Amino acid sequence: MIEKIFLSLLIFILINKAENLKYNPDWSSLDTRPLPKWYDDAKVGIFIHWGVFSVPSFRSEWFWWDWQGDKPTSDVVDFMKNNYPPNFEYADFAPEFKAEFFDPLQWVSLLNASGAKYVVLTSKHHEGYTLWPSAYSWNWNSNDVGPHKDLVGDLAQAIRTNSSLRFGLYHSLFEWFNPLYLSDKNQSFKTQTYVKEKALPSLYEIVNKYEPEVVWSDGDWEAQDSYWNSTAFIAWLYNESPVKDSVVVNDRWGSGVLCQHGDFYTCQDNFNPGKLLSHKWENCMPLDNNSWGYRRNLKLSDILTIEEVIKSLAETVSCGGNILINIGPTKEGTIAPIFEERLRQLGEWLSINGEAIYESKPWKYQNDTKNSDVWYTTNGDLVYAILLKYPQSSLKVELGSVQITEATQINILGNDEKLQWVESPEGGVVIDLHSVDASSLISKWAWTFKLENISYQKC
Amino acid sequence: MIEKIFLSLLIFILINKAENLKYNPDWSSLDTRPLPKWYDDAKVGIFIHWGVFSVPSFRSEWFWWDWQGDKPTSDVVDFMKNNYPPNFEYADFAPEFKAEFFDPLQWVSLLNASGAKYVVLTSKHHEGYTLWPSAYSWNWNSNDVGPHKDLVGDLAQAIRTNSSLRFGLYHSLFEWFNPLYLSDKNQSFKTQTYVKEKALPSLYEIVNKYEPEVVWSDGDWEAQDSYWNSTAFIAWLYNESPVKDSVVVNDRWGSGVLCQHGDFYTCQDNFNPGKLLSHKWENCMPLDNNSWGYRRNLKLSDILTIEEVIKSLAETVSCGGNILINIGPTKEGTIAPIFEERLRQLGEWLSINGEAIYESKPWKYQNDTKNSDVWYTTNGDLVYAILLKYPQSSLKVELGSVQITEATQINILGNDEKLQWVESPEGGVVIDLHSVDASSLISKWAWTFKLENISYQKC
Amino acid sequence: MIEKIFLSLLIFILINKAENLKYNPDWSSLDTRPLPKWYDDAKVGIFIHWGVFSVPSFRSEWFWWDWQGDKPTSDVVDFMKNNYPPNFEYADFAPEFKAEFFDPLQWVSLLNASGAKYVVLTSKHHEGYTLWPSAYSWNWNSNDVGPHKDLVGDLAQAIRTNSSLRFGLYHSLFEWFNPLYLSDKNQSFKTQTYVKEKALPSLYEIVNKYEPEVVWSDGDWEAQDSYWNSTAFIAWLYNESPVKDSVVVNDRWGSGVLCQHGDFYTCQDNFNPGKLLSHKWENCMPLDNNSWGYRRNLKLSDILTIEEVIKSLAETVSCGGNILINIGPTKEGTIAPIFEERLRQLGEWLSINGEAIYESKPWKYQNDTKNSDVWYTTNGDLVYAILLKYPQSSLKVELGSVQITEATQINILGNDEKLQWVESPEGGVVIDLHSVDASSLISKWAWTFKLENISYQKC
Amino acid sequence: MIEKIFLSLLIFILINKAENLKYNPDWSSLDTRPLPKWYDDAKVGIFIHWGVFSVPSFRSEWFWWDWQGDKPTSDVVDFMKNNYPPNFEYADFAPEFKAEFFDPLQWVSLLNASGAKYVVLTSKHHEGYTLWPSAYSWNWNSNDVGPHKDLVGDLAQAIRTNSSLRFGLYHSLFEWFNPLYLSDKNQSFKTQTYVKEKALPSLYEIVNKYEPEVVWSDGDWEAQDSYWNSTAFIAWLYNESPVKDSVVVNDRWGSGVLCQHGDFYTCQDNFNPGKLLSHKWENCMPLDNNSWGYRRNLKLSDILTIEEVIKSLAETVSCGGNILINIGPTKEGTIAPIFEERLRQLGEWLSINGEAIYESKPWKYQNDTKNSDVWYTTNGDLVYAILLKYPQSSLKVELGSVQITEATQINILGNDEKLQWVESPEGGVVIDLHSVDASSLISKWAWTFKLENISYQKC
Repeated sequence: MIEKIFLSLLIFILINKAENLKYNPDWSSLDTRPLPKWYDDAKVGIFIHWGVFSVPSFRSEWFWWDWQGDKPTSDVVDFMKNNYPPNFEYADFAPEFKAEFFDPLQWVSLLNASGAKYVVLTSKHHEGYTLWPSAYSWNWNSNDVGPHKDLVGDLAQAIRTNSSLRFGLYHSLFEWFNPLYLSDKNQSFKTQTYVKEKALPSLYEIVNKYEPEVVWSDGDWEAQDSYWNSTAFIAWLYNESPVKDSVVVNDRWGSGVLCQHGDFYTCQDNFNPGKLLSHKWENCMPLDNNSWGYRRNLKLSDILTIEEVIKSLAETVSCGGNILINIGPTKEGTIAPIFEERLRQLGEWLSINGEAIYESKPWKYQNDTKNSDVWYTTNGDLVYAILLKYPQSSLKVELGSVQITEATQINILGNDEKLQWVESPEGGVVIDLHSVDASSLISKWAWTFKLENISYQKC
Repeated sequence: MIEKIFLSLLIFILINKAENLKYNPDWSSLDTRPLPKWYDDAKVGIFIHWGVFSVPSFRSEWFWWDWQGDKPTSDVVDFMKNNYPPNFEYADFAPEFKAEFFDPLQWVSLLNASGAKYVVLTSKHHEGYTLWPSAYSWNWNSNDVGPHKDLVGDLAQAIRTNSSLRFGLYHSLFEWFNPLYLSDKNQSFKTQTYVKEKALPSLYEIVNKYEPEVVWSDGDWEAQDSYWNSTAFIAWLYNESPVKDSVVVNDRWGSGVLCQHGDFYTCQDNFNPGKLLSHKWENCMPLDNNSWGYRRNLKLSDILTIEEVIKSLAETVSCGGNILINIGPTKEGTIAPIFEERLRQLGEWLSINGEAIYESKPWKYQNDTKNSDVWYTTNGDLVYAILLKYPQSSLKVELGSVQITEATQINILGNDEKLQWVESPEGGVVIDLHSVDASSLISKWAWTFKLENISYQKC
Repeated sequence: MIEKIFLSLLIFILINKAENLKYNPDWSSLDTRPLPKWYDDAKVGIFIHWGVFSVPSFRSEWFWWDWQGDKPTSDVVDFMKNNYPPNFEYADFAPEFKAEFFDPLQWVSLLNASGAKYVVLTSKHHEGYTLWPSAYSWNWNSNDVGPHKDLVGDLAQAIRTNSSLRFGLYHSLFEWFNPLYLSDKNQSFKTQTYVKEKALPSLYEIVNKYEPEVVWSDGDWEAQDSYWNSTAFIAWLYNESPVKDSVVVNDRWGSGVLCQHGDFYTCQDNFNPGKLLSHKWENCMPLDNNSWGYRRNLKLSDILTIEEVIKSLAETVSCGGNILINIGPTKEGTIAPIFEERLRQLGEWLSINGEAIYESKPWKYQNDTKNSDVWYTTNGDLVYAILLKYPQSSLKVELGSVQITEATQINILGNDEKLQWVESPEGGVVIDLHSVDASSLISKWAWTFKLENISYQKC
Repeated sequence: MIEKIFLSLLIFILINKAENLKYNPDWSSLDTRPLPKWYDDAKVGIFIHWGVFSVPSFRSEWFWWDWQGDKPTSDVVDFMKNNYPPNFEYADFAPEFKAEFFDPLQWVSLLNASGAKYVVLTSKHHEGYTLWPSAYSWNWNSNDVGPHKDLVGDLAQAIRTNSSLRFGLYHSLFEWFNPLYLSDKNQSFKTQTYVKEKALPSLYEIVNKYEPEVVWSDGDWEAQDSYWNSTAFIAWLYNESPVKDSVVVNDRWGSGVLCQHGDFYTCQDNFNPGKLLSHKWENCMPLDNNSWGYRRNLKLSDILTIEEVIKSLAETVSCGGNILINIGPTKEGTIAPIFEERLRQLGEWLSINGEAIYESKPWKYQNDTKNSDVWYTTNGDLVYAILLKYPQSSLKVELGSVQITEATQINILGNDEKLQWVESPEGGVVIDLHSVDASSLISKWAWTFKLENISYQKC
C-alpha cells in the first residue's frame, strides 16, 4: 500500500519533469522530431572503420568473431595458426596498433577533397576497444594501449578547426565478448548490468565529450530496445544533450527497431532500395567489397571503381538517401592511396556535379523510365539527370521521364554549351551528343544533364 | 513525509534481516568474531606478488606508479627511456607476461617443502590487472591478455589437491590509474561508482569463485571504509560467504582501520613490533629487501639470508604474530632458484624446529631478559627458547627469563641429548654447550632449546 | 727473376684459355657483344625493390644510410627516436620482414596484366641482405631471418612456369656497412677481401642458381671495375654461364663505366634523355616519386599518374630506350593496390597500343617537330605517333615531322575508323578529330595514330 | 719443372723464416713449449657461456642443434611449437638478446669475490654468433643485432682495469649451420673455404683485438687439425702473437688432438680423473648440471651445492688440474643470484682455504688411502689435507697417507689452535676433533688440515 503511493508519487514527479521536455522516451514521441536540415542537405558522408582489428588487418573488422565466435571461419583460424604462437589472443594485438603516422590534418585535407559533408568514425566497434580514453574501458582503449592517443578527440578537433564537415560517431551497443554483456545475454537480457555500467555510460561519455552530430548506433540486434534503454538515451540526446538541435541518429537501437525508427534508416549494410522511400535513409557502403576495416592483403579487384561509387551515389541520392562511403585506415594511421584516390576522384566528380547532389531533393521520377542508366534529382526548378553510361555509337540519350517545353534548355555539367534535343514520339526527349567531342567532357565517370524549364510536378 | 515512512520501512526490513545473521556491518560487531584457530596455528605463510609488474621486473611492483605517478622516480623513468620506444605505456607490457613455464604443481611442491601452512597470492595489485578472468576487468586480466590462463584458479586447484595449505588472496581495493576510481577520488569519495562497479564486484567474485581463506586487503588508505563499503563486505564474508567459518581478513579496509580492526593486524609492511601484542597480527616480509615483485636485476645482497629469515620468524612467532614471507615469481612463471633455496632452507629448519613454531603460543616472556638473541614460544607445558646466535668461545648460554626446577631438562631440537645446566646467580639458567660438537648440531641457522619442567606462569 | 718466369707462364696459360672463349675480360672485347634481341623487343620491364628496408618502410630504401651514414637525415633520425628504443639497430628489423602474404602466383598474374616483358628483382640491395639463401650472407638473408623463404627462387619459379616474362636480378656490388667492404675501402681498394669473399661469390651464386637474363648491377661507384673484377665476371657471364646467350647487363660495374659500357646504359636513375641515343639504354623509374622501396606513409600525390607513366613510356621507347617501372612491395609481401592499379592501367593501355611499343624501333624523328606532345615509333613500314595531350577545342592535331602521301591512312589504335587529314602548309599533316566522339576513344590516357603509307626514310 | 723450382724456393724462404721462430706448426714442436706458470698457479677459473642461446634459454646452449640438427629432441621442438609462430627461426631470436642490465664492473666485482684467478668467456659458440663486432660475422654479432655492444671488449676492459684476473676466450671452430662449413664438410673437408674465410680470421681477430691469455678452443671434432690449420695458428700464437709469452691453449684443435696436445688437456666436459695426470689438465664444470647456458626454468635441484663444488675443486687440484666453473648469464646480462651465491660461497671458502689451493702442487698422494673424503695438496714444505665430510660421532679423522714426526703440528685453516693427534697403528695419524666446538669451525663446507713437519717424499 505504502509502496504504491510512493511509486505513484515518483511517476508523477517524473511525468512533470518530462513534460517540460520536448520528447518522451518512447518511439511514438521520438519519431515526431523533424530531421535536422543539415543532414538531408549533406548527402555524402565518409565512414571510417578503425580499431584493433586493423592490426591483424585480415578478412574484416569481424576478425575476432570469425576467429573465436560461434562459427570460426577457417581462413582466420589458419591465419592465426600460421602467423602467431598458439598462446596468442586478441587483446595481445592491441600494442601493435601504433597509429604512428596518424596525421589528423592530413585526413581532414583528404575528407575536404572528397566532397563529403560529414564523417562518421567508429568510436567503438564490437570488439569493445574504444578510440577515446573511456573511463569505462580502462586499458582497452586507444589512450592506454596501442596508439596512446585520443583518436576520436584528435580527429574531431582537426575536423572542426579545418573543415566545415559535421563530425559523427559510430558506437556499437554490444561487445561480442564482454563478460558483462555475455552475463546479461545468458540471463535472456533480464539483467542490465552491461547496459548500465558500460553501454550507456559510453554513449553519454562520447556525446558529452565529443558532441557528435551523428550517433550511428550498431550491434543492437540481439536484444530489444528496452534492454538497451535506447529511447531514454535518445530522448536525452534530443532534449538535453549538447547536440540536441543538430544531432541525428540512425535506426539500430534494438531488435525490431531497424528500418522503423530513428532520424534515418539504414535497414542493412549497402542498403540501396532503388526507389523512393518515405523516410530519410542512408546507404552505408564500403569501398572494399569484402571488409569495412582495412585488410593488408587487399587487392584492386576488391575495391569499387570510381564508376561504381558514383553509380551508387546517383541511385542513392535520387531515391532520397544519403551515402556513407567507408574506408578503413591502417594500424599505422594512414589511408591507403587507393582509397585516397577514390575519395579524390569522388571529390573531383562532385566539384563538377555537386549541384545535382548537395541540397537536392528526389524528383518525381528516380530512375528514368526508358533509360535505366539515368537517375534524377531536383533542386528548386531545376532537374538533373545523371547519366551513368555514355551511349556508345548512337550518341543519343533518350529520357522517357522528362516532359519538355519550348523553353527547355539542356547542358552537361562542366560545360555550358546547350545541347540539341528533340521530343521523342512517346513524349520524352532525345538529347543529341554529336556535338560533344571527347575533349569537352569534363566529367570522366558520369555526366549530369541539367534540365531547365521542363514541365513537371513536384513529387 | 511519505519518503520518511518508506525509508523507515526499508530500515526495518533490513534490520530484521540482519538480526538473523551473526554479524552486523560495523566494526563493533565484526570485531567480536573469534579468530579461526587454523590461522593462529599456522604461523608461517608464503606471500606471492605477481602481475604485469613482473614484466618490466624493475625496481618493484610499484613500477607503474614510480614511472607515472605523482612523483616519478628517475631510475624508472630512465629505464623506460633507455629500453622502450617513447610511445610505450604500461598496458603494452601485458602481452609480454607469458607465464610459459608456470607449473602450479611445481610451485605447490616448493610451498610444501617450505613448511608454510598458507599461501596468499596477489589476485590483483594496485595496477588493477587481475590474475583471474574477472568479469569486471575485461582485457585487463591474465586470461585475456598475457598468460591466457586463470592463474588464481590454477594455483588454488593445485594447492587444494596436492597440499594441506590454506589458500588466500591479496586484493587491492584501489587501482592507481583506474579512471572510475580517479573520478570518485576527484569528488572526495562522495561518489562510489568505482566501488560499486569494480572493487566490490571483484571481491565478491574472488570469494565466490576461489573461496580464499585469507582475504588480504590492501590499497585502502586513501578513503574511509564507508567509501569502500568494507564492513558490509566483511559482514557478508563472515555471515554468508562460502568461507564464512574459516576465512580471516587483515586490517586494510579504509583509512583509520589499519591496526584497529580485522582478524589480524598488519599495521605496516615488515611489521615486527618486538613485543607481544594483544591482538593477532602478521608480519609480511619480502625476501628481496627492495621489492615484493620480482626484479630481473636482483642481486644476492638484496636478498635476506636464511639467518635473517629465521630471526624474523622467531621474533614474530614469539610475539604472537604470523609471518608471511614474500616471493615474486618471474613473468615466465618460474620462482628464482635463490628464492627456492630460501624456502627450502626454511622448510629444512622447520622440519627440525617446527614444534617450537606451529600451534605454539607466546610465552610469559618473548625476548630473553639477559640474552637478546633468544626468543621464546610455548606449547602446552613446554617452553622453547630459540637461540639466534651461537656463543663463540664461552660455549655457555645464559637465559635470564627461565626459572628452573630440579626436574628441568634441556635439549636442542634435532638432538635428544640432555644438556648440562646450572642455575645462574640471578635466578636464570646457564646452559653448557661444551658437549655439543660440530657434527651433532643438526640445525644450521638457529637452535631451539626445548625446556621441560621449568617453573613459570602462563602469560 | 724466377717469379717473373712463373708469372709469364701463368699469363700464357690464362691467355690460351681465354682464346678459346669469345670474350676477353676487358671492355674492348665485351663491348663487341651484340645485344640479345629479346631485350630490345621487350621495351617494358618491372623493377621490384624489396628488402629489410621494407620493414621501417620509411623515406626510402636508403633508410639505413640516411639514418647512420655519413650525413644522417633528420626525418629518419627522428623516426627512429620516436618509434623505437634507443638501443635498436638496423639488423633488429629483419625478423619483422615476414612476407606472410607473399603469393608469387598473384604477383605473376599482375606482372602479366601489366604488359611488361621482363622483371628485375633486387636480389640484394646496399643493405647486403640477400633475398635468397646465400652461402655468403649467413643469417642475413631471407631464408635465415624474417620471411624464411627463398624469395628470389620462389618468384623465379612462379614467373617461369606462369608467364613468358624474362627474369632478371638486381645486385648491389657494395654494401654500405659490410666491414669487409669498409676495410677494403679504408685501404683505398688495394685489398679485395670483400670482392673475393662476398661480392663475386654472390654474383656467381645467383647466376648459377637462378639464371637471371638481366644482371642489373648497382652500388659500384666508389671503386673502379678493376677492384670489382667486373670484366672477369661479365666475360664468364657471356662465355660460360648458363645464361650466356640471352643475358644482358647494365652499365654499373665500377666508377667510370656508367653510360660507357654494358649491354644497356642506365646512366642515372630516371634517365630519360629525350633524344635518340646510339647505344641501347634503359629508363628505370619508380612509381613513387620519392622512393624505390615501399613507404608506409605513401600519399597519392607521391605516385605517378598513369598519364605520367605513359608519357615516360612513349618518350623512352621513342628514343630507343626500355622502361623499367619500379614498385616496392610491402614487408607483408603484398603490392599496394595503387601500384596494382597503375600496372593494370599500363597493361590496359598496352593491350590497345602495344603494337606501337613492343618490337618497335625508333623512327627518323622522335618528338614531333611541331607538337611536343607527340612521340614516334616505327615497326616495319608503319609509323606510330603517340599523342599525349588531346587537343582541347580545335580538335586538330598537326604533325610536323610526317610527310604524307596520297595513300596515307590514319587511325587511332583501338578504332579502325580512318580519320580525315589534310597536308599542312609546311609539309606536315593536320589530322581532324571532329569525327572522334567521346565514346569511340578506347584508350583513356594517350592515343596512338597509326600512320600507313607515309613517306619517310629510316633513321 | 719451373713450378718445382718455384715451390722449393718458397719452402726455403718459409723454413728460413720459421727457424727464426721458436715453434714450428706441428705438434712435436708445439708440445715442447713450457706451460706458463700463471696458469698452473691459478687453479680456479670461471667459465661464462653467453650467446643467442640465452634468449630461448631453454634446455641448453645446444638449443639450436637440439631443435633443428640431425636428431631434434622433442622438448625443444615442443617448446618452439608452443611458444612461437610456426615461421620463426633461430636468427629471429637475436634481437631479443638485449643485455640491458649488463654491468661489466658488477661482473668483475663478483669474479673477484669468487676467488677465481681467470675467466673464460664464450666469444663465439657453435651458433656462430660472435660476442664481439667481428668483421667476419656481419649482422650476426652482438654489436649489430641484439645488445649492440662489444660484450667481449667491455668485459675484457673491466677485468683488466678492476682485477688481477687473467682474461681468456672460448672459441668454437665449427658452426653447426654455417653454409660455408657445411659445404666443406660435404666435401669431406677437402675444401677449406670456411676455415680460411671464417674460422681462422675470427681467431686471429680475437687474439689481436682482445689479447686473451687463454684460447679455449672447441667444436673441433668433426675434422682433423690439418683442416683447421690449428698448428699454424698455435705456432703464430706462441711465436708472434701479442700474448705469445703468457697464453695457454687447450686441447680441442681437431679430431685426435683431444687429450693429446695443448698446454692443458680438457679431455671431456666435467673431466675429473680422480688421479694424478702427467700433463696439466683442466676440469670444466657447469654449476647447472644440465646446461652451460642459462636456462630460464632452472630449478634449485639442478644446481650444484657448494659442497659439491668444493669437492670437485679439492679433487681436481689434488690431482694436478685446474677447475673452470661455469655460469650462464641471462639474456638481460645478469647473473642469477643462485650462481652469485655459489661463487661468493666459493670465494668465502677460498679466502680461508686458499693457501691449500693457489700455487699448490699435487702431493705424493692425492686421495687419502684410508679416508676417501680427504684430498691432498702441497706447497713448499707444507701438506694440506682437505676433509670433505666431518666425522659424525667419533670425532676422529684418520689419515692413512701421512707419516707423522715428532714435530708434526696440525691445525684447521681459519683456526690456529693445534689439534691433538696420535699415530695410528698402521703408521698414519688419527686427529682428534673433540676440542673443536661448533663455534670454532670457520669453514662451513670442507675443512683443511694444515700439516707441518710431516715426513714425506715429493712425488
